[in-house]
Amino acid sequence: MTVHNEVVLARPVTAKPGAGDFAVVERRAPNIGEREILVRVAYLSLDPYIGSRLRGKHMGEPAPAPGESLPGFCVGEVVASRHPDFAVGDHVVGECGWSELGVMAGDQARKVDASLPLSAHLGVLGMPGLTAWAGVTQLAKVTAGDVFLVDAAAGAVGGTAGQIARNLGARAIGIAGGAAKCDLVRGAYGFEACVDYKQPGWQDAVKLACERGPSVHFENVGLSVLQSVMPMLRDYGRVVLCGLAEHYQVEGPPASLPIGAIIGKRAQMLGLVVYDFYPRLDEWLALATPWLAEGRLTYVEDVAGGLAAAPAHFEKLMGGDNIGKSIVKVAP
Amino acid sequence: MTVHNEVVLARPVTAKPGAGDFAVVERRAPNIGEREILVRVAYLSLDPYIGSRLRGKHMGEPAPAPGESLPGFCVGEVVASRHPDFAVGDHVVGECGWSELGVMAGDQARKVDASLPLSAHLGVLGMPGLTAWAGVTQLAKVTAGDVFLVDAAAGAVGGTAGQIARNLGARAIGIAGGAAKCDLVRGAYGFEACVDYKQPGWQDAVKLACERGPSVHFENVGLSVLQSVMPMLRDYGRVVLCGLAEHYQVEGPPASLPIGAIIGKRAQMLGLVVYDFYPRLDEWLALATPWLAEGRLTYVEDVAGGLAAAPAHFEKLMGGDNIGKSIVKVAP
Repeated sequence: MTVHNEVVLARPVTAKPGAGDFAVVERRAPNIGEREILVRVAYLSLDPYIGSRLRGKHMGEPAPAPGESLPGFCVGEVVASRHPDFAVGDHVVGECGWSELGVMAGDQARKVDASLPLSAHLGVLGMPGLTAWAGVTQLAKVTAGDVFLVDAAAGAVGGTAGQIARNLGARAIGIAGGAAKCDLVRGAYGFEACVDYKQPGWQDAVKLACERGPSVHFENVGLSVLQSVMPMLRDYGRVVLCGLAEHYQVEGPPASLPIGAIIGKRAQMLGLVVYDFYPRLDEWLALATPWLAEGRLTYVEDVAGGLAAAPAHFEKLMGGDNIGKSIVKVAP
Repeated sequence: MTVHNEVVLARPVTAKPGAGDFAVVERRAPNIGEREILVRVAYLSLDPYIGSRLRGKHMGEPAPAPGESLPGFCVGEVVASRHPDFAVGDHVVGECGWSELGVMAGDQARKVDASLPLSAHLGVLGMPGLTAWAGVTQLAKVTAGDVFLVDAAAGAVGGTAGQIARNLGARAIGIAGGAAKCDLVRGAYGFEACVDYKQPGWQDAVKLACERGPSVHFENVGLSVLQSVMPMLRDYGRVVLCGLAEHYQVEGPPASLPIGAIIGKRAQMLGLVVYDFYPRLDEWLALATPWLAEGRLTYVEDVAGGLAAAPAHFEKLMGGDNIGKSIVKVAP
């Protein structure tokens, strides 16, 4: 493999990113530096946070310039290593961008169990799964008896979060956009109920499903849902602030929440940054791996074939038209 | 005492309440109903929440109409009782309005230890003290090593909160308006530092005092302080949302906080409603009473004499010109 394909930014992204913002370019195989590894990418993960990264609005990291590589997690096989922990043939997950052949910082890469489906390390066993685990178990500390509400419930984070909550004895109620997503949430994911927020009166349906209101709400979307949920929240309710997907794509004033509502509900608003929990991934894997084997944890992927499909697949994700974890199968 | 004085609302309050919004009227001694008690008021408490109560903006309670009695906590002596728990001569604290002779619902009144200064039951041993205790120990769970920041630090809640935090081993840093208030906070209250927010560059002074930023912030004022403090907050910092005094007095859009800042700081925003903690007042008194005796807890009062002074004294409180707990000495 002397040349390989990479997807780069074609122009600055200011609003909702679309397929036309990207270009596929041919690159020579890169040289790797000290403590780096070269990875033949099997799967690339597309995630909502990339939308804000492209606009320079994510955790203070600068937006990539046109022509520069794009941020993204990959899983694949090591083909060259200058890091003592990794050998050729190891399977690894880490950040290497939208590329067929990616360079990873070995210190930030992680070996994965190749006997499990490789792509799962980008979803349920990777960052989205860890996000769900951290929010449900470490921030909200969900226990039996909780009424657990989550939006973007068909997504990788939301779907996993609800299943974790249910497995811990809580009632899991989802919010998702459209009948097909709700079918997934109730069916494959086994939530007790799912409300389609594209239907009029969806707020009443959520209220009905939660009975006396949610005791925990896991927010993946942003203000449009949160403002409807806050008045329903039980007193002393916990709200995990995980993602603001709807605000990643648009310019405008920052999403704000009335403080009076937090006080009135005696609520706990809990900010979640998954990066903090990477050192604890093994705790999640120890829980998730048997659950997967027993069928108590299910995941669904929306897979596109070939790196060249990544721009259109990302546009689909940004439009909320994916069902399940958005993945690009890069290796043939 | 066949007639007594009462202060009523003279006209609807829409903006910052002033002395002219009130009128002193003469009333006959009221009859009391079943389970009520009649109290000769010794001291009336003036508190910032009354400002929002008068505008119908506090916990969903309606504003009093012109001519109606005003909300307020009093301490005094029982002169008639139709409640089995109270006898003539008992000293009690409870809600009885701005009156020389008040009717209390016995079920909501509480007997107090008359060997302690009576007015303290309205301040450090009453609602403001309980608010401070609940926020510091039950919500923020302050421990040794915390850097505890509080605004309105010369006030009854803020001053007590900082002293509790210090007694628990934290560093207490105050924010207050003006040199005289800061002197009180550093002197009588014994905070490590106090920053005058009326001085330019006060944000830098807070940053300097807190070194690596506060690990806990106790918010009594509202957005003008909170928006400056959020960027300084340590990662995983806890913010007690206790009062929004600056927003009680003005119309306008509700005070809102950018959600992105909560997530970025991995913060916990904790809504506090002191009413929830009334059943646990004894826990606070068990801590506070010896602290008072040992000089480890100090309080300062701003006392006006005579019920007729209440309107002007309340205007002073609303203008932030009081130093210490605002109290009206009603009985001669």
